This record gives sequence, C-alpha cells and structure tokens, in this order.
Amino acid sequence: MIETPYLLFLGDAPDMLAAKVAIGIRDWRPDHAVGQLSLPGCGADLGLTEMSLAEAKEAGAKTLVIGVANRGGVISAAWKEVLIKALEMGYDLASGLHNLLRDEGDLVAAAQTHGGTLHDVRVPTVGYPIANGVKRSGKRCLAVGTDCSVGKMYTALAMDAEMQKRGMKSTFRATGQTGILITGHGVPLDAVIADFMAGSIEYLTPDNDDDHWDLIEGQGSLFHVSYSGVTMALVHGGQPDALILCHEPTREHMRGLPGYKLPSLEQLRDTALGLAQVANPDCKVVGISVNTQHLGEEDAVKYLAEVEARMGLPAVDPYRHGAGRLVDALDAV
Amino acid sequence: MIETPYLLFLGDAPDMLAAKVAIGIRDWRPDHAVGQLSLPGCGADLGLTEMSLAEAKEAGAKTLVIGVANRGGVISAAWKEVLIKALEMGYDLASGLHNLLRDEGDLVAAAQTHGGTLHDVRVPTVGYPIANGVKRSGKRCLAVGTDCSVGKMYTALAMDAEMQKRGMKSTFRATGQTGILITGHGVPLDAVIADFMAGSIEYLTPDNDDDHWDLIEGQGSLFHVSYSGVTMALVHGGQPDALILCHEPTREHMRGLPGYKLPSLEQLRDTALGLAQVANPDCKVVGISVNTQHLGEEDAVKYLAEVEARMGLPAVDPYRHGAGRLVDALDAV
Repeated sequence: MIETPYLLFLGDAPDMLAAKVAIGIRDWRPDHAVGQLSLPGCGADLGLTEMSLAEAKEAGAKTLVIGVANRGGVISAAWKEVLIKALEMGYDLASGLHNLLRDEGDLVAAAQTHGGTLHDVRVPTVGYPIANGVKRSGKRCLAVGTDCSVGKMYTALAMDAEMQKRGMKSTFRATGQTGILITGHGVPLDAVIADFMAGSIEYLTPDNDDDHWDLIEGQGSLFHVSYSGVTMALVHGGQPDALILCHEPTREHMRGLPGYKLPSLEQLRDTALGLAQVANPDCKVVGISVNTQHLGEEDAVKYLAEVEARMGLPAVDPYRHGAGRLVDALDAV
Repeated sequence: MIETPYLLFLGDAPDMLAAKVAIGIRDWRPDHAVGQLSLPGCGADLGLTEMSLAEAKEAGAKTLVIGVANRGGVISAAWKEVLIKALEMGYDLASGLHNLLRDEGDLVAAAQTHGGTLHDVRVPTVGYPIANGVKRSGKRCLAVGTDCSVGKMYTALAMDAEMQKRGMKSTFRATGQTGILITGHGVPLDAVIADFMAGSIEYLTPDNDDDHWDLIEGQGSLFHVSYSGVTMALVHGGQPDALILCHEPTREHMRGLPGYKLPSLEQLRDTALGLAQVANPDCKVVGISVNTQHLGEEDAVKYLAEVEARMGLPAVDPYRHGAGRLVDALDAV
C-alpha cells in the first residue's frame, strides 16, 4: 500500500508520452496528486500546480511518485538529488521503473536513515498463495483482449469511475505497474513466479459484498503467445462473473509478433468464455470495448454499430463515448 | 547442465515413494547412475550397487544427486555430513528439494573451497527471453492432461525411449524438477517469472533437424485453475506439432480442487488444439495416454478400447502396454 497523496515527479521527461504514469494518476485519481515537480528541460506538463518538495510536503504529500520513464534505464544524478532530498524530508518513494530504487545504494541508505519506504511496484513484495479455486462472494469483471495494449486498463478504470459516479460498489484491481501506481496497490502479475500467478489474483480479489464488483485489470491476451499464460491466470484466478472483450480494429498483427494475425471478436468470445467457465460456470460475456483512436468519429460510430449488430452485445469506445453502456450491461448480470 | 554420471543419494528415505526422483533416474537414464548410497534406516532400495562416496568416485561418478524427499523441509545433520564429504571429494551436488542447497552456509563454504557446484534445480539459473513466437525448425510433441499428475512426464519419457530404440531422432525436454534431475538439464517452469514462461520453453526447444522430435514434458492442466497459466505457456511456447492427451479415469475431482470435475477428453482435445493452433496452425492431436494404474488389466483394456473407438485416436497406457502406438502416430504426422 503506497501512502497518498502523491507529489508527481516528472523529471526531465522529453514529452507527454514519457509521462504516462503521471497522466494516469491525474486522470483517474486526481485526489491522489497534490501537484507536479519538473526539472529544467521538462517537456511534459500535467496542468497541475508546480510544487517544490517543501511546498508539496506542506500540502500533505506523503509519497514522491516517479511518474515518468527514465532514459537509458539509468537513474540520473539530477534525479538522484531530488529523490534523496525527498527521503531526507520524510517522503516515501514509489517507482515502476525497470531499474529498481532498492538497487541504488544511496537511495537505500537515505531511506534507512530517514525511515522512508522505497516502493518498487515492478516487484512483488507479498508471498502469494497457490490458487485454491474456492468460490468467492461478490462479483468480478475481467477485460480480455484480442491483443496486448488494446485498452483493457482504460476500460476497467472507466467502468470503475462510472460505477462510483452511480453510487455502485466497485473497486479497480490493478495487475500492472501503471495501475498499481494509480491506485496505490495491486499485483505486478508479470513479475510473479509461475506457480503463484492465479493465487495472486485470488489474493487481489477476495470475498466481498454480494453487490460489489471488482474491475480486474487485464494483461496480455489468450492469443498472444508471449504472454498468454499470464492472461490465463487472470481468467482462472479472477473467477470472473463477467467478461468485457477489448479490441483495436486497425492493428495488422499481434503486438510484437509480425507473423500473428489478431483473432476475431467471435474467437476471443468463445475461447475466453469457455476457459472462464471452468472457474465460474455462470460467467457471461457482457460487452465489447473498442479502442477507436485510429478511426475518425464517423468511422468509429459505424464500426461500433456493425460490431454491436454482429455480436449482439453493447459495443462502445469508453474514451469517446463513456463506459455507461458497459456498466448498464454489468448491472444487468 | 548437471555432470553425469551420478551417485544416487537415498538418505534415510522411509519408503520407495520418497525416492521418486532416484527411481526416475534408474528407470529412464540407467547409464547416469553408477550406484546408490543409503544411510542407516533407509527403507528404499533401487536394486543398484550400494557404494560409498569413494567407491562411486572410483567408478566415475561426478555428481551426488539427492534422489529422495527430505522430512520436514530440513537438511538433517546426517545428510549434511555426507553432502559435505562429497564436496570435499570433488563431487558436485544436485537437488530438487524446496529448501535450497545454496541457502545452507556450510554447503556453500565447502563448495567454494573445493570448487564444486551446487545445482538447485527448483530455481532457474538462466535469464530466459520473452517469447517471440517465430516458427522453429524440427518437430515438437506436448503431453497435455485433463488434470495434474496424470502421467504426462511418464508418457513423454516412454515415447522418447521408444523413439531412441527405433533410431528416431528425439529429445525429452524436462520442465519440472524430477525431469531435470533425470536428464541433467531443463527448465523449472513453475519457478519461472510470469513474463518469461513461454520464452523459457522456446529456449528449451530450439531449432532442430526437420526429422527431430522434442518430447516436451507437460505441466498442470488447462483445466486446473491453480496452474493453467503454466500449461498455457507450454502450449504457446512449445509450438507443438502434435498433442498427446493424458487422462486418469478414476479421479473424482481435479487434484487439490474438490469442487472441480475433470473435463472430458473431448473438451481437452478441443480446448488444447484450438489454443495450440494459435502458435502452430498445423498442430494435431495424435493419441491418448491413459494412466490405468487403478484399473485391473481387463477393465483397463476395455476402457482403452472404448476411448479409442469414441475418439478415433490410438489410446494406450504406456506403462502397461508400451508407447509404441503413440510413436507410430507421431511418426505419421
């Protein structure tokens, strides 16, 4: 559990693309961010109040979150200066960088001296159990994709936000680095030891109120040969009651796999549902989330209408048109 | 790569069941074992020559393999005495125990002093790549099960032995501790980090001669919610050309999951084949291996005939009747 609120560290991010994590926090958990801290030459601006470490501390910030990817996998001297000063002032640090805070001797020393915590969210810190498959109370929704990076996290976050707005009981359950930094907790599933993957998802989505929904962040794809085992653990460990199919219609091949075509939505539906029903015989496919960012408005609307008619399920782009109809579908389960 | 031949350490094994690893080596790689070493009170006997460390060394043994499960997860003082003496005499040690040799300070010290290697086969020692899904040359066969522990390793080892006898090109590819100790190398898949599972299997089964078969040891089951992600990585990372379905007909529920029924062989066939064809569109299901140990000979023969007629595929128990017909089926692919 990462302590909130955060000060978002943008460092010397060359552009907004590099600040994906910070943008996610600003968009989905605005209450978690008291401000932003940039270094000279920073090309990203979240539109939050620019604050020094001292000003943010005054405003209540508990954790300095590295909201930006670093260049060349090295934590630079300029970054180090800020990070060490933050620890000296009583901040915790949180990072999803590949190179870990805990591998930097000076950060470890400063954290020890000043009683701060270094959160490397890429690395599991919990000894997860082996999955036991026992039916849990409460309800769970999992987004599954025809491919990686088609909008599964966005879909789950948008549905969670809509449900909160409606006063429904819901929790977004993060399974990747960005999601964990946004919400402050979760399971970095891609870094979990094989035998404990499904168990980590059972741990993440425990018994809950009968009318509570966990919106589980999907990972990979059952059709992506590099990561399908990770997806499978979500399908079986998550015990979903509802599946949302996610798709990006302009992609010509599976991400990173030039020889592999994307499956159809029908193939995804049949494969994912059959496997999900092993863990939960009542599981249903309730809706389709399409990432239409590479289509114009007219083409997007036309494509969604075509998919909706063909599949007999609500098909929406939650970014363009909101997640309302997906939540309606979930509410009807 | 563990250096062969071995001296098999039986310790104070209470019975033969505890000596599963040593039995596997004796049965499948008899040339790897120069003899056995028991402690007082040992209730297991492999029928190999009982040898002291010195006698086995004289006979050429390079590695002392712990062929027995220990009690209570502790390496006892009596074991330690033998293990340290072995290191002093120039042996390497190999173990599949949960508690690692490398975590025992005195073993580490002795290994360093005498230049020996401690092989803990539960722990990956290779930095595996992310799977790239590129089609590899040579052929691969994967055993998939309706459940865990239904005879997948036995089936692959029996097919490999039969192929060797026929002069066919084949390699058994170990993916679990016992298999790794039997053959001296492999991937401890259940201990691999999620993101690298499929890549570890690509690494294990590289390009090969067009008429060479890898017999890949299966793990878990696509229908076992605790481990299905591991199985999925084998199906996609292994790129199998041929699948063998494995089944144990008397089991009343999935191993360790009282609420879960086993799938039918038809369900296994359809699910495994559909997923395998994502990575290799030419994949076929070629045969069925049934573990009939809990059936009498007559019931076993009757059951196999019934399955064979129903599924239209050769159905055999390789333990009772040999793996010949499964190899015939593979040879016809």
